[in-house]
Amino acid sequence: MSPTPTATQWTLAHRAAKMNPSVIREILKVTERPGIISFAGGLPSPQTFPVADFEEACAKVLRDDPQGALQYAASEGYGPLREMVAASLGAQARAQGQRWDINPNQVMITTGSQQGLDLVAKILLDEGSRVLVESPTYLGAVMAFTPMEPEVVSVESDDEGLDLADLRAKAKDARFLYVLPNFQNPTGRTMSEARRAALSATAAELGLPIMEDNPYGDLWFDTPPPAPLTARNPDGGIYLGSFSKVLAPGLRMGFIVAPAAVYPKLLQAKQAADLHSPSFNQRMIAEVMKDGFLDRHVPTIRALYKAQRDAMLEALAQHFPDAKTNPEQSLTWNTPAGGMFLWARLPAGMNAVNLLPHAVDKGVAFVPGAPFYAGHPDERSMRLSFVTPSVAEIHRGVAALAAAIKEQQAA
Amino acid sequence: MSPTPTATQWTLAHRAAKMNPSVIREILKVTERPGIISFAGGLPSPQTFPVADFEEACAKVLRDDPQGALQYAASEGYGPLREMVAASLGAQARAQGQRWDINPNQVMITTGSQQGLDLVAKILLDEGSRVLVESPTYLGAVMAFTPMEPEVVSVESDDEGLDLADLRAKAKDARFLYVLPNFQNPTGRTMSEARRAALSATAAELGLPIMEDNPYGDLWFDTPPPAPLTARNPDGGIYLGSFSKVLAPGLRMGFIVAPAAVYPKLLQAKQAADLHSPSFNQRMIAEVMKDGFLDRHVPTIRALYKAQRDAMLEALAQHFPDAKTNPEQSLTWNTPAGGMFLWARLPAGMNAVNLLPHAVDKGVAFVPGAPFYAGHPDERSMRLSFVTPSVAEIHRGVAALAAAIKEQQAA
Repeated sequence: MSPTPTATQWTLAHRAAKMNPSVIREILKVTERPGIISFAGGLPSPQTFPVADFEEACAKVLRDDPQGALQYAASEGYGPLREMVAASLGAQARAQGQRWDINPNQVMITTGSQQGLDLVAKILLDEGSRVLVESPTYLGAVMAFTPMEPEVVSVESDDEGLDLADLRAKAKDARFLYVLPNFQNPTGRTMSEARRAALSATAAELGLPIMEDNPYGDLWFDTPPPAPLTARNPDGGIYLGSFSKVLAPGLRMGFIVAPAAVYPKLLQAKQAADLHSPSFNQRMIAEVMKDGFLDRHVPTIRALYKAQRDAMLEALAQHFPDAKTNPEQSLTWNTPAGGMFLWARLPAGMNAVNLLPHAVDKGVAFVPGAPFYAGHPDERSMRLSFVTPSVAEIHRGVAALAAAIKEQQAA
Repeated sequence: MSPTPTATQWTLAHRAAKMNPSVIREILKVTERPGIISFAGGLPSPQTFPVADFEEACAKVLRDDPQGALQYAASEGYGPLREMVAASLGAQARAQGQRWDINPNQVMITTGSQQGLDLVAKILLDEGSRVLVESPTYLGAVMAFTPMEPEVVSVESDDEGLDLADLRAKAKDARFLYVLPNFQNPTGRTMSEARRAALSATAAELGLPIMEDNPYGDLWFDTPPPAPLTARNPDGGIYLGSFSKVLAPGLRMGFIVAPAAVYPKLLQAKQAADLHSPSFNQRMIAEVMKDGFLDRHVPTIRALYKAQRDAMLEALAQHFPDAKTNPEQSLTWNTPAGGMFLWARLPAGMNAVNLLPHAVDKGVAFVPGAPFYAGHPDERSMRLSFVTPSVAEIHRGVAALAAAIKEQQAA
């Protein structure tokens, strides 16, 4: 005999009311019509996925130590991979002129760097806690922080990074500053060496913890970006990294480097969240990475993305010749030194959200910039990804974007 | 010029003070000496991992659709896998005499079923929210709920499952009841059909949501367990499942089946937590599972574990012949009908935590039962896993356990 089902009393947590679907995922759904050239996605180019190397690594891992790859494992992650991360970050920092000695015990492997954001929020944010972000900032970080119900405060930012006077004005009682210094999502901008040195000094003076997110740092085009903030004061920061952009996002592998003051609590949060990240994927990545694979592979990604960035810059210059002479009446844009995104700004009086459906009608999609602002949004801003479409598509897409803008200007 | 690092003001969230390392992981570290026969772990037998099938699946997935397997993907999970889960649960319920029609849109793929516990806690628990659990209960669930700072309330339980009178007395304003009805961790017990029918009716009458966790349900020895609680009232429950025990835990793959009242918020929590579970692992599992693989594979796991359970029962009966005639002066134990664990109870006056170091000295390890109680613990209880050691080791381990108990009794 089945019971008569009555209305079950589902009571949602207070925090659930604050959680919302990603505006950007909703936008992407609209733009996923066949035939649309998309500058909207944040997807690495699948051309860069080292498929044959993964296939070899899978076979080797399952042959050499199937039990290790398939059994439950330590929450901290696979030892050899943690060692590789520590060594590789240390070597990179040295090449950037900064000493950074990382004990592998400070490294934790996460289910993508997105999970790092969730875990840090869990252990550092109470309801109403102040957390500082750039303006604009990575939307996925704000989405990861939101369930902990913090007050997210936007710090003014310019082309070189954070405005330190505004940071000082807002830093009191902040639990941490979240910053993405290299080829930022969404703006593509990079924090200068001078700004990093000053920010690091300011944060140290204020005792302000920094959460540094660096998923794109390896994708530089001409010269490596300046050394990480965390390398300058390892006890004062948590560093998040990712294998998604240098190997493949579908394996969901990232990592945290955290100081002793927070590592044990992060580990407990990790254990409670998913016990550990897949042992198999960790070993696959360690297998692929050994013998310096990334030193050979990443330059091919850089070259591809640089060529595509150049194509986008060339197409933009061609279709918007007045950008420099009459910037208020033209689309304008920056020149990212790496990464996947370029940040553009519509002519005065236009609104990127309103433009989007017209652009899609013309056959091109982008992401409006407004959702990336925790504070007052710039409605004219938009994010253009140059990594997924081909060079020919980039030229056609920019032409379509120009046509949509001109029609809207004339309307 | 580097700044002078000063003491960074790391302020932990309130919830962090409540989070603790897993007592059991700490115990396991003590027992991981070489040569120790371990009844302590909760690890599936690596003999059951279908390594060759995984190797084939990896190669096929990377050959057929490398881009799909390696790119970012939908937070809900891989469509064909969601369909397989829905179809397979529906077919199982029908075989158990219960109709359960699951729309694949109700299924979400998670990073192990542990993540399901974390996501449900996030959307349903506020600080101080009442959550009901069995006595004893799965410690990992309590650890997943703790960061949301609920009041975890233990409901009395007997060999057939929850005490419904105690449930009624404690159900007011509870956000949900967490229950693991099949071959429970830690006790190995199974909720009877009568108790399920009564619990389902009671929960429906009270409007009490049920979170049903079923990682072990496929591992029955003689007959399948009764149909799930969620199948009896799908709008009143969230069901968690896992591929860890039927395929391999190292892939970290589980799933949630959730009603429309909570699915959208769970999805937002999932997206914020890790964007999505690894696309590659989802496709690997879908590839292995197609063509009814589990129908051939799982019976081999059942046969292995049943033989090992039988060996443990036989060894216990041999070393503790007075269990039935003089239960207060003997070790006593239950007879699990499936799963991985057996629940035992020491003679009166003994304490499993105190016994453990003596048992380890004799060469055998177990997990004391006390940490599994959210309420008042039974200090005499202990969990014995019969799946990791061989039959010969089980006999030697039980002999060592008996020697340790007898020495302690004589002391």
